[in-house]
Amino acid sequence: MVEAHPRLEAEDLQRHLREVQAELAAPASEALRAKLDGLHPADVAYILEALPIEQRLALWSLVKTDMDGWVLLEVSDAVRDSLIGAMERAELVAAVETLDADEIADLAPDLPQDVLEEVARALPPEERARLRAVLSYEEGTVGALMDFEYIAVRDDVTLETVTRELRRLDELPGHSDQLYVVDGAQVLRGVLPLARVVVADLDRSTAELLEPERMRFHPEDSAEEAARAFERYDLVSAPVVGAGGRLIGRLTVDAVVDYIRQRSAESELAKGGLAEEEDIFAPVLHSFRNRWWWLAINLVTAFIASRVIDAFENTIESLVALAALMPIVAGIGGNSGNQTITMIVRALALGQIQPGTWRKLVRREITVALMNGVVWGTLLGAIVFVLYRNLALGGVLALAMVLNLVLSAVMGVAIPWLRVRLGRDPAMGSSVLITACTDSGGFFIFLGLASLLLV
Amino acid sequence: MVEAHPRLEAEDLQRHLREVQAELAAPASEALRAKLDGLHPADVAYILEALPIEQRLALWSLVKTDMDGWVLLEVSDAVRDSLIGAMERAELVAAVETLDADEIADLAPDLPQDVLEEVARALPPEERARLRAVLSYEEGTVGALMDFEYIAVRDDVTLETVTRELRRLDELPGHSDQLYVVDGAQVLRGVLPLARVVVADLDRSTAELLEPERMRFHPEDSAEEAARAFERYDLVSAPVVGAGGRLIGRLTVDAVVDYIRQRSAESELAKGGLAEEEDIFAPVLHSFRNRWWWLAINLVTAFIASRVIDAFENTIESLVALAALMPIVAGIGGNSGNQTITMIVRALALGQIQPGTWRKLVRREITVALMNGVVWGTLLGAIVFVLYRNLALGGVLALAMVLNLVLSAVMGVAIPWLRVRLGRDPAMGSSVLITACTDSGGFFIFLGLASLLLV
Repeated sequence: MVEAHPRLEAEDLQRHLREVQAELAAPASEALRAKLDGLHPADVAYILEALPIEQRLALWSLVKTDMDGWVLLEVSDAVRDSLIGAMERAELVAAVETLDADEIADLAPDLPQDVLEEVARALPPEERARLRAVLSYEEGTVGALMDFEYIAVRDDVTLETVTRELRRLDELPGHSDQLYVVDGAQVLRGVLPLARVVVADLDRSTAELLEPERMRFHPEDSAEEAARAFERYDLVSAPVVGAGGRLIGRLTVDAVVDYIRQRSAESELAKGGLAEEEDIFAPVLHSFRNRWWWLAINLVTAFIASRVIDAFENTIESLVALAALMPIVAGIGGNSGNQTITMIVRALALGQIQPGTWRKLVRREITVALMNGVVWGTLLGAIVFVLYRNLALGGVLALAMVLNLVLSAVMGVAIPWLRVRLGRDPAMGSSVLITACTDSGGFFIFLGLASLLLV
Repeated sequence: MVEAHPRLEAEDLQRHLREVQAELAAPASEALRAKLDGLHPADVAYILEALPIEQRLALWSLVKTDMDGWVLLEVSDAVRDSLIGAMERAELVAAVETLDADEIADLAPDLPQDVLEEVARALPPEERARLRAVLSYEEGTVGALMDFEYIAVRDDVTLETVTRELRRLDELPGHSDQLYVVDGAQVLRGVLPLARVVVADLDRSTAELLEPERMRFHPEDSAEEAARAFERYDLVSAPVVGAGGRLIGRLTVDAVVDYIRQRSAESELAKGGLAEEEDIFAPVLHSFRNRWWWLAINLVTAFIASRVIDAFENTIESLVALAALMPIVAGIGGNSGNQTITMIVRALALGQIQPGTWRKLVRREITVALMNGVVWGTLLGAIVFVLYRNLALGGVLALAMVLNLVLSAVMGVAIPWLRVRLGRDPAMGSSVLITACTDSGGFFIFLGLASLLLV
């Protein structure tokens, strides 16, 4: 697409960033404008992300309008908001109009409704239909990732005709490793790899030369499954077909790579308790909004655990050492439960867990928990005996650790199992749920045992 | 490579898995053997991973030797161990010998030293030199990911000669989106995209037609940076050059995708407290070994926190409610600190943090922490006042929450900053470190304030 720009290694990118910052300090210059024109949109996006908000907007006003759309595609959601917010309506329409239907669809969630409508109205009918199609597919489906830059050839022509057609194109779209062969009704018959076009006789027909496609997708297929297929079979591009096998688009490896990165970022953020990507230079109120939800959940679960402890007020009163030891029992349960749940969520995502496997998994995890409990419980119990000169207290701590580890093993399997049965994502919030169980459970087991056996 | 096998969607894979399990229950049949031969090695690998250990080894013995090498490449490290362990030495040598140098290098860490040596001796000299080269590059470098299946053409021939050469090849290697143009000394001059080969005049010379390559890598370049470049610039393949710009290999998008997946799996596992990928059917002792390290660290930090509480034994004795409330202060600090550290580690990985930005970040995080502290501290303080009818206790809780949140903000920036300065990976173990600080810190702040102001 934007092939004229150099590709930069990481150090060069850093250097450009420093130079841009130095030039921004001076009055906006033509030199800076020219420098920006010479960079790839992805690199302009990188520099914008690394700049504090005032400098970012100053630089953004210097980026050429015909590059604006590309840059918006490349920045993260959080930064995109700040850039779009700083644009005039007409500017924004002009920037978005330069993009293809599938790219406009990527930006759509962040665009004001009226801008999207104006852009759609200005599109040629075919592109408008494509935009509507892509927007109709949910996030996480192949339809939302596909593009329309495939080259389709008829199945009743010779390779010579195909080559002549190709020569008329200025250049082939990116990731064109193969042409798609269709019949008169646009039904996909197979593919013709460019590698084959290069070596085959020109007077042979496409019908003779075509190969069955390695993989075809439907727009409603899961993007995650498609990504795994790209990975498993090392694909560069694959056709997307609609009803009756008609070719409607293609999926390319660059869209798949972006999707994998985005998914892995989302799970990283969710595990850290963030709702979404954060712009490190955004006003603090943005960050507050991004973070309050998980903090609130955490406070509720901590409050419940606090009520469990409160119920044993008398027990603690008569043996204060319990207060000092109870976080150990809760902590090891949480850590061990998180290990179990991480392992199971991964195995689920890789499709390694069969319906009949769950019972086996629980047994296995309980065995590992018992081993851990005996080893660490005995060790900690002995340390406590030495510290407090109280054998019973050491014994209760060891027993509580074993029991809370078993609880963490059971819940570590039960939580993902239940979420799968309810049709939910087993990963989302799993760490919070398991920690809530093992905190409250750990306090209850330890203080309960203590009140039965010690006090 | 193994192009003759069908590509399967997820449901089909599941069906094959069930069929294989049914057939494994019956005495090993020729039908099953034939079925396996018809599957792609990646799909055989998937089925092996999803089978319990006895069934897995039964099935493994039915896989044809000439497919063994491919399957070993596709399975996870944990499962690879179990498969290699079940193979005769001669079998293993035969399986590995079918692979290319870069693939043998991928397996090398899991192969017995003598097997690797025997395979290396049997290789043709050029392949042996390549194997030695790839093995010499550290994990995480471009050299460890590159392959040698590039097609190089001289810069002084016509396109007609090139096409004739290509026709002699049975088929082009996967991911050949471009040919590499070199001079007589193997120095890279540029690339010739297949898309261009298809459309250009046959009597033009490669020197006229070549384009500057979008990106070239050196074998010692960071694989992470290379992956980002593939993502930024949507590459399918890129040349790898050694001293003097001589072409020595290429990097392809499928190797990059595998690398990204593996990195994201590693960080997921490390955050969950697992040392490495676990085979869900491995003996429990394997799991124990995989998990004990993080549990031990957790126990040490929990033990330190426990000693902090112990120091305030008298304070707790005189006001037991403190024992019930202290986990709330510690918990919210841990959660908030994890949010800060997740955000900063991501921004670091994306290269958005400049040396001058750290001070700004601390100020920003402290402001967010103060906002959170005032909101949640006031709320929890009010609830505690209602529950315990003790205004001072509510006030101490609120103040302790604010202070522990500020501590979590400072440490959430300081920990990654310090690790970067020491040249370490800022992500590794960051969650354990921050939680250790906010647990002990939270107990100390809350109980310390209580002993000063309440008791």
